[in-house]
Amino acid sequence: MESEKSHPPRTRSVFRNISPLDHRYYLANEETFEALSDYLSEEAAVRYLIRVEAALLKAHLSRPGAEGAEYLKDIDTLEERVSPDEVYREEEKTRHNIRALVNVIKRKVPPAVRSLVHAGATSADILDTAQSMRVRDAVRAVALPELRRLLELLIDFTLQEAETLQVGRTHGQHAVPITVGFWSAEYVARLGKSYREIMRLAGDLRGKLSGAVGAYNALTLIVPDPQDFEERFLAHLGLAPSEYSHQLVEPEYLLRLLLEMNTAFGIVANLADDLRSLQRSEIGEIREFFGEDQVGSSTMPQKRNPWNSEHVKSLWKAFCPRAMSFYMDQISEHQRDLTNSASSRFTAEYIAGFTAAVRRMAQVVESLRVDGAMLEKNLGAAGDMALAEAAYILLAESGDPEAHEKIRRLTLACEKSGGSLREEMEKNPPIREGVAKSLARSLGITPEEFFSHPGMYRGQAAEKARALAEKYRGMLKETQETTI
Amino acid sequence: MESEKSHPPRTRSVFRNISPLDHRYYLANEETFEALSDYLSEEAAVRYLIRVEAALLKAHLSRPGAEGAEYLKDIDTLEERVSPDEVYREEEKTRHNIRALVNVIKRKVPPAVRSLVHAGATSADILDTAQSMRVRDAVRAVALPELRRLLELLIDFTLQEAETLQVGRTHGQHAVPITVGFWSAEYVARLGKSYREIMRLAGDLRGKLSGAVGAYNALTLIVPDPQDFEERFLAHLGLAPSEYSHQLVEPEYLLRLLLEMNTAFGIVANLADDLRSLQRSEIGEIREFFGEDQVGSSTMPQKRNPWNSEHVKSLWKAFCPRAMSFYMDQISEHQRDLTNSASSRFTAEYIAGFTAAVRRMAQVVESLRVDGAMLEKNLGAAGDMALAEAAYILLAESGDPEAHEKIRRLTLACEKSGGSLREEMEKNPPIREGVAKSLARSLGITPEEFFSHPGMYRGQAAEKARALAEKYRGMLKETQETTI
Amino acid sequence: MESEKSHPPRTRSVFRNISPLDHRYYLANEETFEALSDYLSEEAAVRYLIRVEAALLKAHLSRPGAEGAEYLKDIDTLEERVSPDEVYREEEKTRHNIRALVNVIKRKVPPAVRSLVHAGATSADILDTAQSMRVRDAVRAVALPELRRLLELLIDFTLQEAETLQVGRTHGQHAVPITVGFWSAEYVARLGKSYREIMRLAGDLRGKLSGAVGAYNALTLIVPDPQDFEERFLAHLGLAPSEYSHQLVEPEYLLRLLLEMNTAFGIVANLADDLRSLQRSEIGEIREFFGEDQVGSSTMPQKRNPWNSEHVKSLWKAFCPRAMSFYMDQISEHQRDLTNSASSRFTAEYIAGFTAAVRRMAQVVESLRVDGAMLEKNLGAAGDMALAEAAYILLAESGDPEAHEKIRRLTLACEKSGGSLREEMEKNPPIREGVAKSLARSLGITPEEFFSHPGMYRGQAAEKARALAEKYRGMLKETQETTI
Amino acid sequence: MESEKSHPPRTRSVFRNISPLDHRYYLANEETFEALSDYLSEEAAVRYLIRVEAALLKAHLSRPGAEGAEYLKDIDTLEERVSPDEVYREEEKTRHNIRALVNVIKRKVPPAVRSLVHAGATSADILDTAQSMRVRDAVRAVALPELRRLLELLIDFTLQEAETLQVGRTHGQHAVPITVGFWSAEYVARLGKSYREIMRLAGDLRGKLSGAVGAYNALTLIVPDPQDFEERFLAHLGLAPSEYSHQLVEPEYLLRLLLEMNTAFGIVANLADDLRSLQRSEIGEIREFFGEDQVGSSTMPQKRNPWNSEHVKSLWKAFCPRAMSFYMDQISEHQRDLTNSASSRFTAEYIAGFTAAVRRMAQVVESLRVDGAMLEKNLGAAGDMALAEAAYILLAESGDPEAHEKIRRLTLACEKSGGSLREEMEKNPPIREGVAKSLARSLGITPEEFFSHPGMYRGQAAEKARALAEKYRGMLKETQETTI
Repeated sequence: MESEKSHPPRTRSVFRNISPLDHRYYLANEETFEALSDYLSEEAAVRYLIRVEAALLKAHLSRPGAEGAEYLKDIDTLEERVSPDEVYREEEKTRHNIRALVNVIKRKVPPAVRSLVHAGATSADILDTAQSMRVRDAVRAVALPELRRLLELLIDFTLQEAETLQVGRTHGQHAVPITVGFWSAEYVARLGKSYREIMRLAGDLRGKLSGAVGAYNALTLIVPDPQDFEERFLAHLGLAPSEYSHQLVEPEYLLRLLLEMNTAFGIVANLADDLRSLQRSEIGEIREFFGEDQVGSSTMPQKRNPWNSEHVKSLWKAFCPRAMSFYMDQISEHQRDLTNSASSRFTAEYIAGFTAAVRRMAQVVESLRVDGAMLEKNLGAAGDMALAEAAYILLAESGDPEAHEKIRRLTLACEKSGGSLREEMEKNPPIREGVAKSLARSLGITPEEFFSHPGMYRGQAAEKARALAEKYRGMLKETQETTI
Repeated sequence: MESEKSHPPRTRSVFRNISPLDHRYYLANEETFEALSDYLSEEAAVRYLIRVEAALLKAHLSRPGAEGAEYLKDIDTLEERVSPDEVYREEEKTRHNIRALVNVIKRKVPPAVRSLVHAGATSADILDTAQSMRVRDAVRAVALPELRRLLELLIDFTLQEAETLQVGRTHGQHAVPITVGFWSAEYVARLGKSYREIMRLAGDLRGKLSGAVGAYNALTLIVPDPQDFEERFLAHLGLAPSEYSHQLVEPEYLLRLLLEMNTAFGIVANLADDLRSLQRSEIGEIREFFGEDQVGSSTMPQKRNPWNSEHVKSLWKAFCPRAMSFYMDQISEHQRDLTNSASSRFTAEYIAGFTAAVRRMAQVVESLRVDGAMLEKNLGAAGDMALAEAAYILLAESGDPEAHEKIRRLTLACEKSGGSLREEMEKNPPIREGVAKSLARSLGITPEEFFSHPGMYRGQAAEKARALAEKYRGMLKETQETTI
Repeated sequence: MESEKSHPPRTRSVFRNISPLDHRYYLANEETFEALSDYLSEEAAVRYLIRVEAALLKAHLSRPGAEGAEYLKDIDTLEERVSPDEVYREEEKTRHNIRALVNVIKRKVPPAVRSLVHAGATSADILDTAQSMRVRDAVRAVALPELRRLLELLIDFTLQEAETLQVGRTHGQHAVPITVGFWSAEYVARLGKSYREIMRLAGDLRGKLSGAVGAYNALTLIVPDPQDFEERFLAHLGLAPSEYSHQLVEPEYLLRLLLEMNTAFGIVANLADDLRSLQRSEIGEIREFFGEDQVGSSTMPQKRNPWNSEHVKSLWKAFCPRAMSFYMDQISEHQRDLTNSASSRFTAEYIAGFTAAVRRMAQVVESLRVDGAMLEKNLGAAGDMALAEAAYILLAESGDPEAHEKIRRLTLACEKSGGSLREEMEKNPPIREGVAKSLARSLGITPEEFFSHPGMYRGQAAEKARALAEKYRGMLKETQETTI
Repeated sequence: MESEKSHPPRTRSVFRNISPLDHRYYLANEETFEALSDYLSEEAAVRYLIRVEAALLKAHLSRPGAEGAEYLKDIDTLEERVSPDEVYREEEKTRHNIRALVNVIKRKVPPAVRSLVHAGATSADILDTAQSMRVRDAVRAVALPELRRLLELLIDFTLQEAETLQVGRTHGQHAVPITVGFWSAEYVARLGKSYREIMRLAGDLRGKLSGAVGAYNALTLIVPDPQDFEERFLAHLGLAPSEYSHQLVEPEYLLRLLLEMNTAFGIVANLADDLRSLQRSEIGEIREFFGEDQVGSSTMPQKRNPWNSEHVKSLWKAFCPRAMSFYMDQISEHQRDLTNSASSRFTAEYIAGFTAAVRRMAQVVESLRVDGAMLEKNLGAAGDMALAEAAYILLAESGDPEAHEKIRRLTLACEKSGGSLREEMEKNPPIREGVAKSLARSLGITPEEFFSHPGMYRGQAAEKARALAEKYRGMLKETQETTI
């Protein structure tokens, strides 16, 4: 066996890299990106290919009547004994990456088993199987734990702020009261479901060993039951076979996972947008942390910018459109064409970009500061106008079919007089009476009490917030037990 | 009660419409498009809104201690008694479509129940609930049956052609043999799974009655248990509530359905591309029907163009990118902004475009003609070169670790000599012997037999084709029983 | 000649249409949409095809030595004498739209010239030429005038509000002062350039008469100089030939126009987003008009929603992604495939959607109300903190290399003390002196004067606003003279 | 001045990178990617920022009456004296990249000029200006030269194959004859125009020095004519100012360049698709080079895959959708938000991906082999059926108004009889006579001569091919002289 890793690894300054993922975002999140590299880098790609070839070799050695069981140990160490660089140098000759890999592996295994290396497989059997494993492992080992952490932080925040009053906003306009925890519970519920889906779909990626056109042509010459052999080979790797395959695994297993990740990305982007707005100078209800020494602007020393939330939204703009590439990669002519070769390599970028965004968002949520004074100020800004809906409901409940129109006119009167809704209501006894009657029945209080405490009109905001937080805390506990 | 439908319906020539869906594709598929209009048109939109308002009214009349049960009959006929035109005329005044609808409904119900119309609801409760129902019903009643028909035709075709030999192609190059049914089984398996997913997701669309910001603020003043009231109201309509809602239902229920439809669209587009290639002048293995009187080209009288397959691919190019709009509509600020109002209306177009593509593809598949002579010609074109892989496998199976390289050189020799693989093999006894040995063991035949019948090397193509066809025939049978 | 238009036009209720463009948006903008229908409907499509066939016939009748000049009058009336319905009924037989059209035309022209109908042309010659004309005319006659109107309104607004002070905002945070006109001048400059580009590109759409594969094969048998004949034929229609054509005109002429329209769409969407934010309850500086009788919410009577701006943003979300379809339609195999047939029909929708958005935005801009009190309140909210940058600049100008850091610490001190920047500066004589020195030199005033009038620090906002408004007013004047 | 570059550069194995651009494609095109890194890497980003800050410093030192001219030399060497690593370490403190850079620069310039560093600028002035320079330089120095080379190769190929007969194809069906050079001339004409546009738009990127909100607030305190100062500063860098700017340069300057690059990308993808089809086993007219030692398939030794063309198409699928991100980045709230920060960094990836695709396509075109035998075989496959159009034209020219239908029936007769068009024509004297008459007049030959040489019916294919090749050869010559 020839000496290994004789060529030094090819290194260069990260500052010479072109992708922001490989310089700026790598440097800003070294630990996370090193973890991602273990699955998404080219080194990882080669390592997974070796792992798949090794599994195939082992499957052959386990065939009934097969000889060579004594070499199994050698095969287990293949992964450490082959470097990407070696494979790349071989590829310069073959101009075919899997044939290069096979040549290198053959040199590292005992002559007696060389003819079994890659036997019955076509390149795509190895590549697609390895790709499914890498994506599955990257998602399970790095992306999902980051998403779980974000969810946990959102759950904590929701429980903590379940009762904190806030003015609800629709169309950017003050509507009726909610609580801060009710707001954040939205993201618990939406992300929670997406988390579960991503986990499910990552566990349903598939491999194959059906040969060049998927009909097990070659394997039929080698083993009596090729589909059984395929299953046993893939079982070593924790995968099931693609239901149908031609040269490639059906593209939809991976597609659905990526689409769901993009769905989660959209939810995170929505949260980022909400946070950007809540940090506006005029609103200022919730702020991401801003360090004492941190500079907001190179020229405006007073600035405190919501730059982390902006960053997350911006990552979404960079990555969301890639869903189009995922869809385009569904189309492959006849038993495959190679027009997904380059595009599918960028899946690695997508997973890294998604993970970076989720991680950044978790940092933001962890650092959130709620400004009670601003919340109160904004909720109180419209006086009791936020209760116009309540007034209409209460009046309608008293049986008045024109309630909406009557209260709408009352609000116009307020605008003119500058007075409060309650004051205008006082001028209008039939309205006041209707409202009072309904209030007595539903809440058992007087208009005076109700209209001076808009916060009473927050419905089931706190209850719903807590219920959702508890539900998804439970889900996280369960999934933790069942996965790793 | 005032006289109804006094305004004539607004009609115009379909040729004045702007969307191809409303002129050309409507005229070409009148029946299907009329069926779609029952769910996706503006008339349908208004009708579903009325249905939802009626359900709300009935829920109120069913509250413990409620009076007015005698009016339930009146409410059931609301749908027929309100025309879209009437609502549109009212909207010119209110400039708010739901308030317009509520005004019109109030005029059509007995005074005693007028105050209960829309009580406790915000516009979005009605709109989102109605939208979920319409999409669900359009998908179930029109899109899915078309997809089922396409699947059935593909299953029939697959069974019929399960044994018909065809040269497999990768990279557009002849590879090793398959069967025509094995080729089409790909689409059975991929579309079959997508069919099941679409059915599942259409059944999981949600409604809501949680009010302006989702915290049941108004409803809390009306009923003791708002979440229970919401569930009972929605149950009338066959829907469950959105787990969380602010002013809107969580966007992901609909998003996932649309993404899955786009997934199915991609599969159909792939089939279209395959068919386009298989109809090339030089290949000509499978053809879509072309009428005797049909004109292929206004200037080249001999042309027979695969225009239906081209049309389907083109529809995919028009609709696939709309997935970006679906994703963008995930983002809504705070308790909702209205920036999904116009964009979500185009969901109707998407469903219509998808259905039209599936329907056209079913017509194509129904009309397919398989050309046995061309299949044979193409399979035989490379002589026994399609068995180069088999030769390599057989040689490797005999224990030769250089099998791939040796056979590759043999194919280069064939190229120079113009001879067949078998002829070159004869000149090379060690290779011939290895191959013969393995053949004897695996298939029990001689190289002469094997290499003069490339079709023997079609692996499990026919078996797999039939197994998948039967599996999805079974699925269709099951889902039929469980759905309608 | 047979009797014409014997079949009644096919009409139906617009409420049965599926595209929002053909019901809701049509009804809301009947005039604009009728204008668009004159170019973008199927009726228009057929009319333009006839116009092109007529031009070809006339070109043939003008060939040296041609007979039949007496029939030219007949040909000029063809457009009125053929109905789309007639062509559609013929197409049911031929299943080829251009062959159907040719058959119908032949019936309507004197026998002596029938053999010249469509002579030397392939369908795509007629279709592509007509499509270029229709798009050009729709853009020039409807889309551009709407865009011009929006620009004029923005110019007026900019001039009117050139001096109105407003706090500048970056990252949603108060930065330093600008003026309202300076804000709107952004859209004058950006849209102004896009207007000019759209006009240029609409004028550069191309036609063709190069036959089935673009090599003038057929025409070579008919006329001595086919390229000259093509030029003369197209000149009748105001078009130049595509530099290269196979069966189709080069796709990039139209692509670039559509991409530029999408660019303008993005600018309008940005304006919509700005307006949405400026109408937030907490900001309230600029408002779109809201009718006295208009209802903001079906349940919250006090609501005044920025629904027009939201609508425009939403249209952008619906249409922007269609740029992907435009790009996909660049690819056509060999001398053309038909996979752009359906997708390119949706160009009509795109132009209509763009026009609707521009028109709606013009309505918004026309109705804008500027709230001076809110502008003043927001500008003053940070006290003199908006001048922190000025303080840093003035201090640096006095030669202090640590100016930024010193002022940044001053702003932190303000935060703790609750005092103003000026007060903190007074406690810090070296800073105060530096600032005073620079102020004396640059503006000739004292810190007291400067820091109590933040509006003085609005730079060249008003001057720049006016200069841009005047520039583009001039451009509009010029282009008006040169175009129609 | 402190010692420089004390920290070692951060290096790592390229195999640990995540983006395919930074490992696989870098390794496969080291020279090109190193050239791209000079403009697109993070190192380059920092270097360009320094260059812009240096230009600003020099502009300040050139102000009338300014002191410090003796330090100009020091400033010129700044670029070499600051390393990205240093800036990154400083950013860990400031968490603001430009403030970090400014701090580092200040340490490297004489105390006397420190207060002038960054004076009057906001971060975005420096960032946007540097970004425009980098993109311009990357496009001019790397992307455009690659595109020029591709064009030159296409021009050579076109001239060389201008007369080589080929069957034209529409809908994948044999149509009428063209020449190979006519086919490739399509790409000369389309890419030629795009080349010119890219050059124009790269030369129209803009810079700015208008401060935090674009109104020259700070600069107004420093210089008497800020707009003049901005122009002079930018002139040092070869840029003009953005017509309008708030904190950012108008986004459309860059957007239009990127959209045009995506347009060129689509043209290259179309060429790739054509080549993929032309290399199909059944067509085989044109082949990309395939090395003697190259492996086509790891399992099918005879395979020769068009993998380079497939690779280019796949890169297009990966990059084309990014146009959506470019459009999304048009929207920035008020005087800017930061949601374009991350997304705009990926512009570097886009330019690299585009360049890689163009370069690969040039390699393909350089290596093309035309297979005369296959061309002849395919052209002859339909016998004289490719002349059906000619027959129809010639018959119509003789005055027969039913020519198309008559010839269409003749082709059906051929199908039944298996005979040639000429044979069927012989059976039909009136048709034969009409055709002969027209042929005599237009080409001066007999039907016998014409119908036995389909190649005569190739129209102006060769002439047009040569004319376009010469035209764009001329354009390339001109642009070379005028640019560098």
